Amino acid sequence: MDEVGLLFAFNQSFFTVIRCFICSLVAKLLIKIGVIKKNLAKWLVMFLIGVFTGVIAACIGITVEQLVSLKVAVLIKYINKCVDNDCLYIPFFIWLSMNIVGVLIAGALVVFGSPVAAGSGIPQIKCYLNGVKIPNVVAMKTLVCKAVGVAMSMSAGLAVGKEGPMIHSGSVVAAGISQARSRRFKSLDFKLFKYFRCDTEKRDFISGGAAAGVASAFGAPVGGVLFTLEEGASFWNQNLTWRIFFCSMVSTFSVNVILSAVHGHPGDLNYPGLISFGRFSNLKYDWYELLVFILMGIMGGLTGALFNFINRRITILRQRFINNRLSKMLEVVVVCTVTTIVAFMLIYFTNDCHSMKILNSTYDVETEKYQVQFHIMDSDGENVTMLDRAYNPVSLALFFICYFFLACWTYGLPVPSGIFIPSLLTGAAWGRLIGMLVNSMVDDTNIDVGKYALIGAAAQLGGILRMTISLTVILIEATGNMSFGLPVMLVLMMAQWVGNMFNKGLYDIHISLNGVPYLGWEAPPMSAKIFAREVMCAPVITLHTVEKVGDVVDLLTREIHNGFPVVDELEEDEQLEGNHGRLKGLILREQLSVLLRHKVFLKVDDMNNIPQHLVDEVSQKLTLTDFRDAYPRYPHIEGEGGGGWALDS
Amino acid sequence: MDEVGLLFAFNQSFFTVIRCFICSLVAKLLIKIGVIKKNLAKWLVMFLIGVFTGVIAACIGITVEQLVSLKVAVLIKYINKCVDNDCLYIPFFIWLSMNIVGVLIAGALVVFGSPVAAGSGIPQIKCYLNGVKIPNVVAMKTLVCKAVGVAMSMSAGLAVGKEGPMIHSGSVVAAGISQARSRRFKSLDFKLFKYFRCDTEKRDFISGGAAAGVASAFGAPVGGVLFTLEEGASFWNQNLTWRIFFCSMVSTFSVNVILSAVHGHPGDLNYPGLISFGRFSNLKYDWYELLVFILMGIMGGLTGALFNFINRRITILRQRFINNRLSKMLEVVVVCTVTTIVAFMLIYFTNDCHSMKILNSTYDVETEKYQVQFHIMDSDGENVTMLDRAYNPVSLALFFICYFFLACWTYGLPVPSGIFIPSLLTGAAWGRLIGMLVNSMVDDTNIDVGKYALIGAAAQLGGILRMTISLTVILIEATGNMSFGLPVMLVLMMAQWVGNMFNKGLYDIHISLNGVPYLGWEAPPMSAKIFAREVMCAPVITLHTVEKVGDVVDLLTREIHNGFPVVDELEEDEQLEGNHGRLKGLILREQLSVLLRHKVFLKVDDMNNIPQHLVDEVSQKLTLTDFRDAYPRYPHIEGEGGGGWALDS
Repeated sequence: MDEVGLLFAFNQSFFTVIRCFICSLVAKLLIKIGVIKKNLAKWLVMFLIGVFTGVIAACIGITVEQLVSLKVAVLIKYINKCVDNDCLYIPFFIWLSMNIVGVLIAGALVVFGSPVAAGSGIPQIKCYLNGVKIPNVVAMKTLVCKAVGVAMSMSAGLAVGKEGPMIHSGSVVAAGISQARSRRFKSLDFKLFKYFRCDTEKRDFISGGAAAGVASAFGAPVGGVLFTLEEGASFWNQNLTWRIFFCSMVSTFSVNVILSAVHGHPGDLNYPGLISFGRFSNLKYDWYELLVFILMGIMGGLTGALFNFINRRITILRQRFINNRLSKMLEVVVVCTVTTIVAFMLIYFTNDCHSMKILNSTYDVETEKYQVQFHIMDSDGENVTMLDRAYNPVSLALFFICYFFLACWTYGLPVPSGIFIPSLLTGAAWGRLIGMLVNSMVDDTNIDVGKYALIGAAAQLGGILRMTISLTVILIEATGNMSFGLPVMLVLMMAQWVGNMFNKGLYDIHISLNGVPYLGWEAPPMSAKIFAREVMCAPVITLHTVEKVGDVVDLLTREIHNGFPVVDELEEDEQLEGNHGRLKGLILREQLSVLLRHKVFLKVDDMNNIPQHLVDEVSQKLTLTDFRDAYPRYPHIEGEGGGGWALDS
Repeated sequence: MDEVGLLFAFNQSFFTVIRCFICSLVAKLLIKIGVIKKNLAKWLVMFLIGVFTGVIAACIGITVEQLVSLKVAVLIKYINKCVDNDCLYIPFFIWLSMNIVGVLIAGALVVFGSPVAAGSGIPQIKCYLNGVKIPNVVAMKTLVCKAVGVAMSMSAGLAVGKEGPMIHSGSVVAAGISQARSRRFKSLDFKLFKYFRCDTEKRDFISGGAAAGVASAFGAPVGGVLFTLEEGASFWNQNLTWRIFFCSMVSTFSVNVILSAVHGHPGDLNYPGLISFGRFSNLKYDWYELLVFILMGIMGGLTGALFNFINRRITILRQRFINNRLSKMLEVVVVCTVTTIVAFMLIYFTNDCHSMKILNSTYDVETEKYQVQFHIMDSDGENVTMLDRAYNPVSLALFFICYFFLACWTYGLPVPSGIFIPSLLTGAAWGRLIGMLVNSMVDDTNIDVGKYALIGAAAQLGGILRMTISLTVILIEATGNMSFGLPVMLVLMMAQWVGNMFNKGLYDIHISLNGVPYLGWEAPPMSAKIFAREVMCAPVITLHTVEKVGDVVDLLTREIHNGFPVVDELEEDEQLEGNHGRLKGLILREQLSVLLRHKVFLKVDDMNNIPQHLVDEVSQKLTLTDFRDAYPRYPHIEGEGGGGWALDS
């Protein structure tokens, strides 16, 4: 294989063979050095992406934790004062106002800062990985708004999670590090990894960032790799996958090191991700239980489809009626108020009046065995204790119904909000109910209802998101239990099949509601009968190999197309209708802009007869670096800098 | 998306629209039913593949276990008699003869039964997944020889493992089930899954089988999926990957259920795979240890490269000098004898004369903490106890050296033999030595040398095989420990890099030594300068759209090519040198054979002017089913049935 370069030389004289051999050796060496350097840079960038994503995840996790415990501390004080003096409205209003401050910050960051930071960000990243760039989706500003915003909206007690936003954050980190400069601060250009300044390289790194996000959110590095494969890959790229895996692994490790240190057990490495399902000591299951699990999968598919249906309706209404900044902020406040009231009501009415719980989903997830847990405050003392695991079925059912609709309303609000945690919580609630039912039927005290809560959570998640491969692996890794893989897989399979009978997954619904031209895995069934000419713009706008500068400028300002076919001039006898000339290639708007900006054109008398030396001269004005420097925000045709048609961030 | 079929109708009258709509609905429904049926069949086949692979894995595991314990029981009896009477040669010769009987069976199955069943089978499966079919590689006979043979060669105490052969077995199971008939027994045609009788479908199922093999061997379903992706995939196929995952999961589950039941704990599900590294209670590591791990990775790369170098030399010598059946059987017996002598010597000399150990790698792997363990028999009693974990460094070093060279000699013998276990054992030996060294240097009693044994095993495996993604996941899943993922990954990375500086991975070496035309991931560096015409046969043999039967038969018997380009007849003025006519397509030898066999030809007077109705008539003689029935052993041009050029099994 190494001597392939010599194949030419076989029929030549001995001397030529030697020369050829030396040449090929030198060439190979040079190529090798270049490849190695670029390769090492790729590994370095992936390492940095992993570390930074892990750090951000840890920061978000710690911030939420601190803010919530602060909030709880304040509330405890007032409740203890008021529960005997019959003035419980005081802590309620304190609670409400604290929450509203939180969502106002989160909402303002999104509405006034970066609208693309709303929601989980996974649909946007999915689009990006599939080649559809949404403006600003990987801008630094988005990262700031997303990270701070999600910490705020979570602390404010909204029915949101921080896992989706982490995936988005990881992607932005990847874009930032691989490009090593900020568009906003033009002087901030480290010129480190210049050769990564093109779409394909950047996309590869963003895959790594997304995987690192998953890895740090769930402590699931393999799940992260499979997430990017499931959502973004068309080809299997061995080396890239290996680098992405490395990035995920580093990210999990970073989160682990930081969280372990913060929680006072440095070196323990027991916090692989933000979310923890706890260790299940005993996940045995009997044969008949597999049947129950499959039924729960169907249930998950049905409730998931219902969730998606309602959320789709709400999103359509929202797009139609809530379209200025003020009304957006107002809706955020309304949702927050309703969430707080519901939480207060649930706590107030599902218990006797002397004790009180504060519903707080952000805390719950961290606890063992994935139960919906309430913080209770005994009116007697000041201790925050946890409820016994045997919940009251009524309060579970109430929680399920309220939280289901609240989550449905919340996802799509202009605040950073993940859908993983709400799905898991609602699923865990009805899963636990089913577990209790099974328990009372079979009369076997050995059954752990926590197991059913886990299956319910998986079913609900599968029914809403319709992800399969990566979700299975994420859940296996997050629970740290291999032998429970088959039930999780069966449940996700059923949930996906049943859900797909009714509608698409939540992310796909939001992608199509946002009007993103996303191409799915398979072509629509009857599309074999459609021809390109039926969907393309007519008439076709072509460029010739030689064009006047004025015409090009005119074309770029007049048309919004992003690329133009370049064709040969037709002979006279070939000028039939529909014949546009022989295709020479495609030139992109951005390439034309760079050419114009660097004045790579000539003044000649006869356009059909340009001396070659002039062409050579003018083409030397431009190098690959010019395109790289311009990437990704190519100069606008109407002047310098930003805005307008430059689609990418 | 659903109304795409209607695009044509927009400009037509209302009536046409309605008709068109109904037509498209009916067509869609029919397509849908067909798709669903085929899809369900695919899931069913994958399920069956998973179950059968799991059953075979469990059978092999149990057989080896039973045979070895039988052997040990016999030996104990004689040793207890002889250790005082100074007649230790008696148990030695009993041991030797038992081993020789074992390898004779294994060798005979391979040499006289199915030569392709030799070795691990992973190189062959890798070739198959990449489109290069080796004769008989997925034949039923191969499965029988492989499964029985590996049980025999393992019981005989050779330095082999059963993991590679399991992957091969899974693939054969997949081929058998998906085709639902046996070539050998022609009457045995279940006609179940007829539409899977083509190369692409069969290959998909074989991917599933290989994954199921990995999953059942290591208890690593995710690792199995990634194994097939790493070794076989060029594209990312969402649905196929999900089905393969399902197949792996079912396979792990089956092994688990059977082994748990056999070991007396039904429902416990603690035996996910054949191999078990045990549960590591504490895999904490310090920062400086990461450095040691990286050095161990380099060490693994070096020893792995040495292993591959020696094995390559041995294989070349073997190919040259050992090429008849007798000499092959003889070599098997010689290797077995040497292995037994070495084992006996090791046991005899590394301990005092009163006690005695029997080295038996097959037993060792099942035990906790991945140590090289010896069964000791106290001369006083009859109890088989285990050595304390603190091994004698000298015996470890001796074991490493002996086992390294034995494994090197054994891999490539005509017996079914996996390389995983020998690699893991040698790596664990030197890893443990390094652990002891570190332990004595840092004077920290907290360090678990078992951790170093694990890292050493990973490094050795990575250095020999050069697999990365799947190997990391397999090791993570097999140890059941997430937080140790980063060290394992770093070690595998280093081992691969260092090893690749010297030579290729063991599987690739064997693929190229066997002369398989396997195409790697990347083209050789200077291949951009080679043209197709320089590597293809000249002159090009073409067929025209109309040919005489006699010419075709003549061509097929004369030439060994597997496919022929079909071209248009050239006009007279175009007949230049090197111009072979306009390409119409490619026809394969197998397609021509089927055409000839079904007599799909005409007797006409003028070849250039054949009436259309005759063409239509004759083309109705043949349906897709005829090709499917003929698959994969198309009729030989010289008569009915087998042999010769029909490359596939």
